[in-house]
Amino acid sequence: MPASPRRATLATVAASAGVSVATVSKVLNGRSDVAPATRSLVESLLREHDYVAPPPRRADPVATDTVEVQFDGDFNAYSTEIIQGVVEAGAELGVGIVVSARKKADNPAAWARGLVAAGRRALLSVTSHELTNQQITALARVQLPLVVLDPLNMPHARVTSIGSTNFAGGLAATQHLLSLGHRRIAYIGGPATAACNQARMHGYRAALEAEGVPVPPGYTRFGHFHYQDGLESGGAVLDLPEPPTAIFVGCDESALGVMEAARMRGLRIPEDLSIVGFDDTQIARMASPPLTTVRQPLREMGAVALRTALRLAAGEKIDSHHVELATELIVRGSTADVTCSEHA
Amino acid sequence: MPASPRRATLATVAASAGVSVATVSKVLNGRSDVAPATRSLVESLLREHDYVAPPPRRADPVATDTVEVQFDGDFNAYSTEIIQGVVEAGAELGVGIVVSARKKADNPAAWARGLVAAGRRALLSVTSHELTNQQITALARVQLPLVVLDPLNMPHARVTSIGSTNFAGGLAATQHLLSLGHRRIAYIGGPATAACNQARMHGYRAALEAEGVPVPPGYTRFGHFHYQDGLESGGAVLDLPEPPTAIFVGCDESALGVMEAARMRGLRIPEDLSIVGFDDTQIARMASPPLTTVRQPLREMGAVALRTALRLAAGEKIDSHHVELATELIVRGSTADVTCSEHA
Repeated sequence: MPASPRRATLATVAASAGVSVATVSKVLNGRSDVAPATRSLVESLLREHDYVAPPPRRADPVATDTVEVQFDGDFNAYSTEIIQGVVEAGAELGVGIVVSARKKADNPAAWARGLVAAGRRALLSVTSHELTNQQITALARVQLPLVVLDPLNMPHARVTSIGSTNFAGGLAATQHLLSLGHRRIAYIGGPATAACNQARMHGYRAALEAEGVPVPPGYTRFGHFHYQDGLESGGAVLDLPEPPTAIFVGCDESALGVMEAARMRGLRIPEDLSIVGFDDTQIARMASPPLTTVRQPLREMGAVALRTALRLAAGEKIDSHHVELATELIVRGSTADVTCSEHA
Repeated sequence: MPASPRRATLATVAASAGVSVATVSKVLNGRSDVAPATRSLVESLLREHDYVAPPPRRADPVATDTVEVQFDGDFNAYSTEIIQGVVEAGAELGVGIVVSARKKADNPAAWARGLVAAGRRALLSVTSHELTNQQITALARVQLPLVVLDPLNMPHARVTSIGSTNFAGGLAATQHLLSLGHRRIAYIGGPATAACNQARMHGYRAALEAEGVPVPPGYTRFGHFHYQDGLESGGAVLDLPEPPTAIFVGCDESALGVMEAARMRGLRIPEDLSIVGFDDTQIARMASPPLTTVRQPLREMGAVALRTALRLAAGEKIDSHHVELATELIVRGSTADVTCSEHA
C-alpha cells in the first residue's frame, strides 16, 4: 500500500489522551458510554490534532484483491452453504474468496495488520465464538471492513451483521407441529444465552402460548448446535415419563442426533415422533426420512455479507448495521399428524 | 509480475512448427506418441530458437500469495473435508487458500493468465469433470503448477495428482460384508468409465471372486456419486426378485440415498439390509444408523496436494506424478451379520 502523508490517527489521539482507541472511537461515534470528563478531553484533542476521518480505501479492486471468510474451527454442512453463497457472489463481483479457520489471535493488532498486508479488502466472520472487542478495535484501526454472518449475539452497532429471522422461524416450526395436532412438543437448542437460540426458542414458546399449550418440565434443552447435543438431549427428552410426540431442534445437525436417539429407542419417524430442524443444510434433504426444517437462506446471507463488505470497503454508506433475511419452513418426511403417533 | 527478457517459449516454437504446444511439450518430455517427422521438426526448431526451459518461479512466497482450490459446481460434504485439509495446511504454510467453483472456461489461455494475475502460486483442482487438455496446456504455458485431487481418471503423466487406494477400499468394504455372512451383495457406483469407480468396483469383484460368490444380473449399477443415484439405483436393486442383503455404495452421499430407498420399502438397517459407503464424510457419522464406510483421507489428501503444489511452485522435484494415500474401513451401525436379515 502506498504510504499516506502522516496524519493524526485514532491511535495518536488515544495516546495523547491516555485512553483506548475504542474510547476515542466511541466519542467520535457519539456514544453515551464515555465519562463526560474523558469525552471533553478527547474532543479537544481531536480538534487540536485536526483529526480528519480517513478517506475510504481505494474504490476499485485490483486483481489480487481478496475477501477473507473466517470460520470458527471445523467446517461442516452449515459452512458449506455459506461458502457456496460467498464464492458464487465473489465470482460475480470479481473478487477472490479466501477461506480460513480462525485461530485464537494472541495479538489482535498483528492479526488485523496481517490481513491487510495479505491483500484482504474485507473480513467476513462466521463464528460460534464471537470476535473479541480487541479484535473488532484492531480491524477498525486498520480500516478493514468487517461483516459478521449469522451472529450468535446481536453485535455492537459498530459491527455490521447479516442474520435471519430466527424468531419467525421458531414460530413457524412450532405452528407446523401444532397444526399436525401435536401438543407435547419439546425444544432442543443451542447455547442458552445466545441471542439466535433465544429467538428460536421464544418463537417456539410464542406459538405454544398462543394455543394455550404448556411447556412441561424438562422439555427445553440447550447445547452447542452439535450432533452430539441432539443425540444426548434427544435421548434425555425421549426418556421422560411423558415424552414429547414432536421435537423442534435448533439446527439440522442436532436434529440428526435426535433422529438417531429415536432410532436407538425403537421409535419410527414420523410415525412415533415428529422432528423439525433449523438451517436446511444438505444433510436435511439426505436424512432418512428427509428432515422437515426451517430454511435459513445461508447462501443468500453469504452473498449479501460479501456485497455489504465490498460496499463498506469502497467507502459507501449502508442502510443498517444489521439485516435479517427471511426464514422459510420446508416440509419433508420427518413430521406427520399426531394421530400417527402411538404414544400420543 | 516483472517482465522477463523476451525468449522463445513453447508457444513460439509451436507456432513456427505449425503444431500445438502440447506436441512441443511431448517432444521435450521424450514422449513416444509424436510422429517421427514432427519430432524432428520440433527438435530442430527448439535448437534454432535456442529454447531454454524457464527457471522456476520465485521460491519465497510473498504475503499476498494464494493457492486456489477449484471445485466443480456445488459444494458438498465431500468438498468440506478437502477444504478443511487444504485450509489447515495453508495456515501452517502461511499461504491463503482461495476457494472457487470452476465455470466452463471458454478461453483457457485467458483463464490461466487470470489466475497468475490474481497472485495464485498454484492451482488445486477437485473436479468431477476433468480439466481439458487445453486448460492443462494453458496452465503449463503460464507455469502455474497444477495438482489434481482424487482424479476421476488417471491423468496424463504431465499432471500431478493425489488420490487414495480405491481398489483396496472396494476390497475391504466387500470383505467386511462377506465376513458378516452376506452372499447377495450389490454395488452402486459412480460413472462406469471413471477410473476411481472402476477401481472400487473391481475391488468389490475381486473380493467376491476370491470367495467364489457370483454377481447376479442387475447387481451392479452406475451413476454420478449423487444422493439421487443411490435413491434410484438402491430402489431398483431392492425391487429385484432376489434382492441383495447388502449393498456396497461408491460414495457416502449415494449410500444415504440407498438408506432412504430401503426405508421407503419398510426395510430396517442393518437388520434387513447392510450398507457400506465410501469417503467417510461428516454425513456418514450423522446418518441414522451411522454409516459403515471406507474412509478416504480427504483432509490429508488436501494437505498433501497443497504441499506438493508449493514444492512445484518453488521449482522442486517431486517423487511421483501420482500418489495414493491409504483408505480405511470404518465400521459403524449400518452393517450387521446376515443372520439378522429376514430375507437372507
